[in-house]
Amino acid sequence: MGIKAKDLITMEQLSVEEIENILQTAREMKNVLKRDIKKIPTLRGKAIINLFYEASTRTRTSFELAGKYMSADVINISTSTSSVVKGESLKDTGLTLEMMGADIVVIRHSMSGAPQMLGQYLRARVINAGDGFHEHPTQALLDMMTMKEHLGELKGLKVAIIGDILHSRVARSNIHGLTKMGAQVWLCGPPTLIPHGLEKLGVKVTYDINEALQDAQVVMMLRIQLERQKAGLFPTLREYSQLFGLNRERLQLAAKDCLVLHPGPMNRGIEISGEVADGLHSVINEQVTHGVAVRMALLYLMLGQKEEW
Amino acid sequence: MGIKAKDLITMEQLSVEEIENILQTAREMKNVLKRDIKKIPTLRGKAIINLFYEASTRTRTSFELAGKYMSADVINISTSTSSVVKGESLKDTGLTLEMMGADIVVIRHSMSGAPQMLGQYLRARVINAGDGFHEHPTQALLDMMTMKEHLGELKGLKVAIIGDILHSRVARSNIHGLTKMGAQVWLCGPPTLIPHGLEKLGVKVTYDINEALQDAQVVMMLRIQLERQKAGLFPTLREYSQLFGLNRERLQLAAKDCLVLHPGPMNRGIEISGEVADGLHSVINEQVTHGVAVRMALLYLMLGQKEEW
Amino acid sequence: MGIKAKDLITMEQLSVEEIENILQTAREMKNVLKRDIKKIPTLRGKAIINLFYEASTRTRTSFELAGKYMSADVINISTSTSSVVKGESLKDTGLTLEMMGADIVVIRHSMSGAPQMLGQYLRARVINAGDGFHEHPTQALLDMMTMKEHLGELKGLKVAIIGDILHSRVARSNIHGLTKMGAQVWLCGPPTLIPHGLEKLGVKVTYDINEALQDAQVVMMLRIQLERQKAGLFPTLREYSQLFGLNRERLQLAAKDCLVLHPGPMNRGIEISGEVADGLHSVINEQVTHGVAVRMALLYLMLGQKEEW
Repeated sequence: MGIKAKDLITMEQLSVEEIENILQTAREMKNVLKRDIKKIPTLRGKAIINLFYEASTRTRTSFELAGKYMSADVINISTSTSSVVKGESLKDTGLTLEMMGADIVVIRHSMSGAPQMLGQYLRARVINAGDGFHEHPTQALLDMMTMKEHLGELKGLKVAIIGDILHSRVARSNIHGLTKMGAQVWLCGPPTLIPHGLEKLGVKVTYDINEALQDAQVVMMLRIQLERQKAGLFPTLREYSQLFGLNRERLQLAAKDCLVLHPGPMNRGIEISGEVADGLHSVINEQVTHGVAVRMALLYLMLGQKEEW
Repeated sequence: MGIKAKDLITMEQLSVEEIENILQTAREMKNVLKRDIKKIPTLRGKAIINLFYEASTRTRTSFELAGKYMSADVINISTSTSSVVKGESLKDTGLTLEMMGADIVVIRHSMSGAPQMLGQYLRARVINAGDGFHEHPTQALLDMMTMKEHLGELKGLKVAIIGDILHSRVARSNIHGLTKMGAQVWLCGPPTLIPHGLEKLGVKVTYDINEALQDAQVVMMLRIQLERQKAGLFPTLREYSQLFGLNRERLQLAAKDCLVLHPGPMNRGIEISGEVADGLHSVINEQVTHGVAVRMALLYLMLGQKEEW
Repeated sequence: MGIKAKDLITMEQLSVEEIENILQTAREMKNVLKRDIKKIPTLRGKAIINLFYEASTRTRTSFELAGKYMSADVINISTSTSSVVKGESLKDTGLTLEMMGADIVVIRHSMSGAPQMLGQYLRARVINAGDGFHEHPTQALLDMMTMKEHLGELKGLKVAIIGDILHSRVARSNIHGLTKMGAQVWLCGPPTLIPHGLEKLGVKVTYDINEALQDAQVVMMLRIQLERQKAGLFPTLREYSQLFGLNRERLQLAAKDCLVLHPGPMNRGIEISGEVADGLHSVINEQVTHGVAVRMALLYLMLGQKEEW
């Protein structure tokens, strides 16, 4: 039951059993979301702090609702890395929150490793909501939940992850999670945006989107960070879109009943065409619901006691 | 029961019966506000999202309290039009919130028509909390509730709305609502700030504040947007105040028991003198209470089931 | 029972009995914080508004959690003095909040006297969460709670307050509170940062940190506001640290079982060394917990009815 470690920092840390346990619990939580009254008393009297050093309305709202649906008290703290709370260290900020009664600190930070460091300082539990170019484990869990719900088993699936792999914590968490579950992960993007040596993790790398898409059962498009373009990491958006964007024609290379995923927010017309985003293969909206369900599951497993709901 | 359409976008859309139903329900809700324990369980397990693309502490707080007094989960999302959530479209933002379980999205947006568009995309219900120069229906409802509470019937009342009519969504919503209820609406302001053709809506237009005030039972002063002055839409603030500001002398033209309304926040000494704002005719503070009551009524009618409270 | 005045603006206003009552209640509240389920129904149906004109994650979060642990509805309003809610006066903002049902307004403001002024306008209760260079009474109460818990009686204690006394509302509130309880307060800092005439309040002033520390049972280090240095109020940070920073060597001058306090956030290595901050004498983390407990006590005493918990 639960997860073994105090904190959830990476997909790398989780065993197959832990992942299956989280996804199974998330399926039950999804039923709560479908109810007319979306409220269970499981986390009453627990305090969850969303400590966001990077802006993220989407992930913050997902955690906030997950906590509130379970009757927890949820507090949002938003700040920017440049003006950390009056210059205080992350350790002191974390300890302050713990001493105020925080049971879980959900942290997003632009520095890889910040959540792990925070977890070492605190007795309170820590969930990584995205750190630098490192990991974003709850995103990978919701992606996997979405795949499982439609395709049953992850084992043996061909999953193509396409875009800026280098800077994507979403890609990194999915690579760890999916390979662990026996999926066959293909990575595809401009050569400058795929780090060397990823094959050691048991994935395939290609710079040809057609090869990546061929017979893929899952196509996961990554968000292009428009600010990276200015840094010269890839040519024009138009060229990027032509080489690595997903449109209806290209999608025909994939398996007949393939799923299209995107972590959002989408740049429609750049990495994904509106037609595909809204098309029959798209499960992008479901991913959002599963995001809340997965976060409820984690909060429950990390804090709650078993009871009826 | 309830309102006919899925969304509340305008006063224009509402029938006389719907308006009366909302105002009657708001009166009951006002009783909840007077209690020692301001809490009813009506919206337990419902999720309300305040999606504010324009800053508005006042309206946001009013909706937030209305939701919380009814035990709903309320989430605030504030952003500015210039930096919409990482460039995501309004449709995708809305769908994301719906997939997270939003039952009602309360939206304020600088673009006229944004709430209506959002409502078309979502199954969740949408309430317009002010869009561009278009409408602000909950403000009109609280104004009408205030008039009704003091004067009984709206039918036949002379209501003078004074100020920058052109850019006022408050004026527009009141025009639709009040004429529908049979009130006689007079609009007054500088000629440059009153659109042509409003007479077609069944209102009277004058550029002479004395004519507007003469025997008026209700005087509604609009807030001057100080930033408009810079755009040269009217002369100096001092001239504006002399020509269209409400002070004690002018108010004597109005009916003996007239009411003075203002949507707030006030520019004391510009569109309204402090003496009038705090005077016996002023119902400006009551308007605020009625704002919470009207919003509770709407949330209830759009979401809740009938039960004891 | 409770506090005599409607508002809590200063430590100066409180009698010895009131302080003892608050601290005793806070001790009971601390037990709630230790529970597995940190939730009591005491303030259900009460509305608390955090109206912060100055940024303060720490104090805002402490009040927010205090309110939520007691089941109140808590609303945060953050703004900056430069852009007060669309230019509205503090009085009108406060009245608006009251008319929306606010039971308590917790206000932080950069202007000394703003909370008192607000309290005069409202029937709702007002708590000063820090105003200009004036007072920060809840900080002094949590400091006193921490001293009492470790040292029993405040009477006769030597308390050294070290740093920028001139600009410190924390110092000012502690001076009033501690002298009232019979403690012997020593103030120490650069001559430019200690106002003249404080001896009239019954405290001792010294510019020599060794004299201040000698046999002190409590050492309270104040936060250096880095922005003041630019204003030329003291030399370099390095010099400040050498003259007035607390390190292990200096601390040996104090009493054997002395306590080290700091209101946070700390500038480690400037006013306090990391070694001392994390050392055996430090009660800095406990102060944070006591902050929540003291605020719960005040909310309870100012709003709640006696009941079981």
